[in-house]
Amino acid sequence: MSDGASTVHPAWLPAEAFGALGRRHTLVHGTGLLVDTVVDEVAGACGRYGGTVRRVPADVPATAPSPVGPAGGPRRHVPATAPSPPGDLLLALRDAAALPAWARRLTAGADGPLGDEGFLLAGSGDRTLLLADAPAGLLYGLFHLVRLGRAAFDARPVECHRPALARRMLDHWDNVDVHPVTGQVERGYAGGSIFWRDGAARGDLARVREYGRLLAACGVNAVAVNNVNVHASGARLLTERLGDVAAIADTLRPYGVRVHLSVTFAAPVVLGGLPNADPLDAAVRAWWAAAARRVYDRIPDFGGYVVKADSEGQPGPFTYGRDHADGANLLAATLAPFGGVVHWRAFVYDHRQDWRDRSTDRARAAFDHFTPLDGRFRDNVILQVKHGPMDFQVREPVSPVLAAMPATRLAVEVQVTQEYTGQQRHVCYLGPWWSEILGFAPWGPQGPTVADVAAGTASTRDPRSGAGGGRSATAGGGLVGVSNVGDDPFWTGHPLAQANLYAFGRLAWDPGLDPVAVLDEWIRLTFPPATTGDPGLVRRTLHAVLDGSWWTYERYTAPLGVGFMVRPGHHYGPDVDGYEYTPWGTYHFADRDGVGVDRTRATGTGFTGQYPRPWSERYEDLHGCPDELLLFFHHVPYGHVLRSGRTVIQHIYDTHFAGVEQVEAMRGQWRRLAGLVDPALYARVSERLDEQRRCAAEWRDQVNSYFLRKSGVPDEHGRRIW
Amino acid sequence: MSDGASTVHPAWLPAEAFGALGRRHTLVHGTGLLVDTVVDEVAGACGRYGGTVRRVPADVPATAPSPVGPAGGPRRHVPATAPSPPGDLLLALRDAAALPAWARRLTAGADGPLGDEGFLLAGSGDRTLLLADAPAGLLYGLFHLVRLGRAAFDARPVECHRPALARRMLDHWDNVDVHPVTGQVERGYAGGSIFWRDGAARGDLARVREYGRLLAACGVNAVAVNNVNVHASGARLLTERLGDVAAIADTLRPYGVRVHLSVTFAAPVVLGGLPNADPLDAAVRAWWAAAARRVYDRIPDFGGYVVKADSEGQPGPFTYGRDHADGANLLAATLAPFGGVVHWRAFVYDHRQDWRDRSTDRARAAFDHFTPLDGRFRDNVILQVKHGPMDFQVREPVSPVLAAMPATRLAVEVQVTQEYTGQQRHVCYLGPWWSEILGFAPWGPQGPTVADVAAGTASTRDPRSGAGGGRSATAGGGLVGVSNVGDDPFWTGHPLAQANLYAFGRLAWDPGLDPVAVLDEWIRLTFPPATTGDPGLVRRTLHAVLDGSWWTYERYTAPLGVGFMVRPGHHYGPDVDGYEYTPWGTYHFADRDGVGVDRTRATGTGFTGQYPRPWSERYEDLHGCPDELLLFFHHVPYGHVLRSGRTVIQHIYDTHFAGVEQVEAMRGQWRRLAGLVDPALYARVSERLDEQRRCAAEWRDQVNSYFLRKSGVPDEHGRRIW
Repeated sequence: MSDGASTVHPAWLPAEAFGALGRRHTLVHGTGLLVDTVVDEVAGACGRYGGTVRRVPADVPATAPSPVGPAGGPRRHVPATAPSPPGDLLLALRDAAALPAWARRLTAGADGPLGDEGFLLAGSGDRTLLLADAPAGLLYGLFHLVRLGRAAFDARPVECHRPALARRMLDHWDNVDVHPVTGQVERGYAGGSIFWRDGAARGDLARVREYGRLLAACGVNAVAVNNVNVHASGARLLTERLGDVAAIADTLRPYGVRVHLSVTFAAPVVLGGLPNADPLDAAVRAWWAAAARRVYDRIPDFGGYVVKADSEGQPGPFTYGRDHADGANLLAATLAPFGGVVHWRAFVYDHRQDWRDRSTDRARAAFDHFTPLDGRFRDNVILQVKHGPMDFQVREPVSPVLAAMPATRLAVEVQVTQEYTGQQRHVCYLGPWWSEILGFAPWGPQGPTVADVAAGTASTRDPRSGAGGGRSATAGGGLVGVSNVGDDPFWTGHPLAQANLYAFGRLAWDPGLDPVAVLDEWIRLTFPPATTGDPGLVRRTLHAVLDGSWWTYERYTAPLGVGFMVRPGHHYGPDVDGYEYTPWGTYHFADRDGVGVDRTRATGTGFTGQYPRPWSERYEDLHGCPDELLLFFHHVPYGHVLRSGRTVIQHIYDTHFAGVEQVEAMRGQWRRLAGLVDPALYARVSERLDEQRRCAAEWRDQVNSYFLRKSGVPDEHGRRIW
Repeated sequence: MSDGASTVHPAWLPAEAFGALGRRHTLVHGTGLLVDTVVDEVAGACGRYGGTVRRVPADVPATAPSPVGPAGGPRRHVPATAPSPPGDLLLALRDAAALPAWARRLTAGADGPLGDEGFLLAGSGDRTLLLADAPAGLLYGLFHLVRLGRAAFDARPVECHRPALARRMLDHWDNVDVHPVTGQVERGYAGGSIFWRDGAARGDLARVREYGRLLAACGVNAVAVNNVNVHASGARLLTERLGDVAAIADTLRPYGVRVHLSVTFAAPVVLGGLPNADPLDAAVRAWWAAAARRVYDRIPDFGGYVVKADSEGQPGPFTYGRDHADGANLLAATLAPFGGVVHWRAFVYDHRQDWRDRSTDRARAAFDHFTPLDGRFRDNVILQVKHGPMDFQVREPVSPVLAAMPATRLAVEVQVTQEYTGQQRHVCYLGPWWSEILGFAPWGPQGPTVADVAAGTASTRDPRSGAGGGRSATAGGGLVGVSNVGDDPFWTGHPLAQANLYAFGRLAWDPGLDPVAVLDEWIRLTFPPATTGDPGLVRRTLHAVLDGSWWTYERYTAPLGVGFMVRPGHHYGPDVDGYEYTPWGTYHFADRDGVGVDRTRATGTGFTGQYPRPWSERYEDLHGCPDELLLFFHHVPYGHVLRSGRTVIQHIYDTHFAGVEQVEAMRGQWRRLAGLVDPALYARVSERLDEQRRCAAEWRDQVNSYFLRKSGVPDEHGRRIW
């Protein structure tokens, strides 16, 4: 439990979420920083709800017992020497103590390794056992109990929980200085940064600690604390401002969250005064090596670097005639001795493209740049690949890079911050979208999924992937999300956008989870039944508002996978031609006859050929291509009949009318919660739903008018198009 | 002559421009600050070219003669008591001294009043006489001699010069603080402000003085020193920062330039702490009255206020249920005792318009807001009307407001800064455009012109204007230009954009001047024949590049008067649909069948009805409407045949191809000047012509592609459209 953040919304860790736990008599076996955290959490709960906690071995002297009781300082647990109530919950590190007989009975036969973060849960009804091999497992197990609530203490057979992905990371695009264009947080929609303000560290470590606690409770274990577009002050976090990073690392460490840093590839020049940053230059290598040593001196568990190189104007190895493997391996070599990794972003494309040139295709860029380098990256390089080939649109195919680099550790990058999905002014629950991405099977339904790729297990599951690396599970690159958190009292601007942060962590831990079930967890935790006027109605309403909100957002925005009909720059609201004649490579090519981008091998850019079968064939085939991606892959006449049976133009009209109607329905549903939930939260959501309604209608009208003006085809149902 | 600005380009006042004057023997009759300036200017020229200057009466003691000679401190003239060389140039205030016989002979019969700023020039060949009634006249006459060069001293009959417009003003949209969006100078394309930097006065008064000198030499006599969008620090110039304004006024005063201030209508609240700014509230009136007294205590010749009220978010009288007459008269009443005026901008429109609503028409707004108030404004209110009904587009009809308020003093506002005409990266000589506007005859060819309206003489010239006020010539509102000057070494970013500043002043003085002749003056002054390698070639080339550059710019940008196909926000470069679905009220309504805005009375917004005959009829008539304004007034099919015989769509294609070819030709012409003009200037212009070529091709391609995609009509000549 942290102090000093009392005006901040508790998100999915309100006191009430600890009610079942806090009534138990708990015994904790184990030592270490994260076990301390576990004990503190339990003690805090007991202080509120009357339970007790004992620890074995105790890490406070028996002569200074801290009574169990109302919340006070840290370490509010009963030392082992105090009189022992019957422990009905045992939290134990497997090697910390001999288990009692009941516990040994409950777990008979379940002695496989749980790993660094896994845990085992079993219960007889009277007694519950949580077992882990390492402190982090105990911490994750504890929050699992919190999630389960009273059900955690039912009788249950042994369950083992291990994260599918070892790396579950949030990247903060937080600027240290306020940037004249992108502000304090690039693509941030939740106020300022929780780390930085106006060029300096905020110093509000209570808030950072609270953040770490929320992350641990949804499963995130790594955070990059500054923007991948590294500006002047951000660059210096690596050197003279390293102390700021160390303070954050110290604060997040008790919750098992490691800190990573975005660095500029030009650091040897910018910070070191060297004449160049050539990755093959000995002085450059020495500079980076010294930098890494300094970092690990201060932060022994430092996670590593995040690098955006040769991308949208950031410096990179191309300047020196080197390639991305040269660049990434340079940094990786300096981190390897300390166990650090390099997250090297694959978001490399020509952002000075000529719209007149229909043969250049931004969608192809990451594949064309990186697949020739497969096998050349060091073991501690993680190639961080955006989930789609473009840029976090509401609908894109999965990036073919994810199926094309078997000898490279790949991380999947998704955007929790809603840059292109309503900027936290619109309700848009992204769990279903991420679930679809992670479950996508690039080699066909029998093959491994994107989640397997991120886990590093794709090659072991299906030889068709052509894997040469044979990586182990822990060698996957994991899942990375761009954070949606700011210094807003609700953390995420839109209170309901908390669900995205929560779902990100949960799906990173287990990509197989049903996103609606994850949402249900979030609802139960965040709106504890005891605190709401009508728990059933609250739960039903939140599901009604959130479950399908991603599809709703898709309906009223850019149709059929075509993407990028947003206002340039800030990316909020519609502008159908906004990027149509720009250098950014994001076009729809609408004319009076049709719309869409021909990316076929037969007549287009050939992008379909970057996929393995069966998708290379399905996407290529006008009639096999999924409707929702049709305009991503094909340029078709407005009269083209979709698999749904509707024409493209009628689909555009219908979905845009339907999307707005659905937003109106969401507003009506939400209004039923007046007086049933926290008034401040109610007001905030209501105000944002009004804006969502306004903006959705604007999307509907602009998109429909644009296509009516261009196609001349009237709406079959005669609705008003302006 | 000012010191301390030696790295700044001399613009149209290089030393060489004073060669003919500086070889003369000059006698100056008169006293006063501006006569001092005249003497200083002549002395400076004599110091360089060997002439002499004497003054009668002397304003320095006879015991301290200052020798005529090399440049030194100020007042380098020969006192009247020194031995007198034969004066072959006499500069005299008519009442300062008895004229010698030769001068009386030369001016026999020419004894009409010259006014505050007029002058009389006559010459026998041996002797030249410049006569004025007031010191400013002598100063303007002096710069007239400079402009004439050697020809000034030819024999010539009496010429009287009086400004057609008494008020010739530049508005600086300079922010005191750097604004997060608009920067130091809103719509500035020539670096920072010459007045302000980072929230403070720059203190570089030498540069300000040099600016005043340039203004006097082209005829400008008033400057507003801060942005009409008045932000926090700008507002305080009226109160605690008044000293900054006084320093500028002191610096400009010797060149006959009065200082005006943009004020916020909310000043009584923002600065005075009053609960409201209601113009009918006694406390508000008292606050403004006290403010005016304080201003005139510091700046006795303060010009007055400029006010943008109830416009694009600026505060105004609407907040209090009052109208613009109430608002303007409030301020005017407080300035009247001191001789000040209020420039009240008529740029009031709904910038939160719904694009779906085709009946609301931004073009109508100024007329609808202000004409009902005609006759209600105080004598010292000047209603400042943008030349067109929209916003400084490259082509608009003249604002009908200028023909509809006979009982109001009207100023015409033009934009010298090239917001919509290439932002001083493109060559675009605006003299012909302003000449066309000022020469426009709203009541038909026999009636008064826009220049007459600005001069206040429209009603005396033609009773059809329905004037009720019977204003005198000096009661016109004059011509106001938004300045294009910044702290750039060439003053205007693009060196050739100096011609616009020069032409603004000259056309304000005499709207009947031929803009090409004005340009020729500028060329001869700025590129003195003695300093260029091939004077004839330089002059021909500058004419070839500049003379038609406005029409060239029009050709490759928005066609046929439709306007606003620019990138939103910064307004540079093409974006055909950029404003099409926005709240700004600036649309073209292009669809697959046609393009243009129906502003007719018969079927459109009725805007044509705001004009008097004959224009109300001509604009209404599809076939009578001038081609260049067709799409401003009518929505027509792409196949509509223009008066030129071409279809609209073919006109679009042809002009866009032609415009780019003309820019290429300009580049070729300019290159002939390599080695013939100042290398730094040559390089600057060359670099900008490259950018103009790039940008013009971008305009061509985007506009042509947009209309080909929409219309499906191929180019008759089969040229490449993307």
